[in-house]
Amino acid sequence: MFWLVFAIFLAACFAAGSTGGLFPPGEWYRKLNKPPWTPPDWVFPVTWTTLYLCMATAGARVALADGNAIAMAMWSLQIALNGLWTPVFFGLKKIKLGMVVLSVLWLSVALTMLALWQVDWIAGALFVPYLIWVSIAGALNLSVLRRNPDEV
Amino acid sequence: MFWLVFAIFLAACFAAGSTGGLFPPGEWYRKLNKPPWTPPDWVFPVTWTTLYLCMATAGARVALADGNAIAMAMWSLQIALNGLWTPVFFGLKKIKLGMVVLSVLWLSVALTMLALWQVDWIAGALFVPYLIWVSIAGALNLSVLRRNPDEV
Repeated sequence: MFWLVFAIFLAACFAAGSTGGLFPPGEWYRKLNKPPWTPPDWVFPVTWTTLYLCMATAGARVALADGNAIAMAMWSLQIALNGLWTPVFFGLKKIKLGMVVLSVLWLSVALTMLALWQVDWIAGALFVPYLIWVSIAGALNLSVLRRNPDEV
Repeated sequence: MFWLVFAIFLAACFAAGSTGGLFPPGEWYRKLNKPPWTPPDWVFPVTWTTLYLCMATAGARVALADGNAIAMAMWSLQIALNGLWTPVFFGLKKIKLGMVVLSVLWLSVALTMLALWQVDWIAGALFVPYLIWVSIAGALNLSVLRRNPDEV
């Protein structure tokens, strides 16, 4: 049962993550003024794949536990928000709106982490790397926003 | 408790649905050869808002019930897929890939409906209008694909 539930949550992660393949960083992104600490492109899919495994494990653990209502609703909310950033940033090329999406995503990930933790502390802990990565992504988006004042 | 969980699921629906506002039907869509039974543009947001209320109610009912693991995982999967179609169709203007996304979404909605039904038949029944609407959207996408062979 655990592995079936895990596989469905992992599929949800990759469904959200497929926007990364559909809207890849192109010429526009390469030409943006980016901070020196910007990770190389290959780091993003590797990191996300690792995070997806943590997120799906956390989801499956809590799905099989009692009293999971708020945690499960929050898991759904954060994955719905997760797939939004890439189409906004790379598709619409809207850096400021990307920052708004990332801020809302960050808040939803933090609240999901707390809700998971209340049911199962291991599940909550599995969301910590995700929250750290979204924080880094937010800092990167903010830096790109400041370094490219002519873009919106 | 029900209303808090309902509100979180509803937020997840509107997060996925926000792609409809971000990638609105533009000049390209107006010029496509569409079947005579194509609904006018205003029908889509009205229908989706109604469906979101049904989907969030179903999610909240099952989140508060026992034995909800598969149903909750499937609810997450379908909402992650739900937000994909609009960026693919209206953003990338890829009609054929849009058909692929809709087919996978249809399957995930059907499986979610069955999983919800096993926990609470009212929740399963609340997904029936959603499945019907995704079927209509699929028929529309297929018809547009056939009527515009030069597009991809």
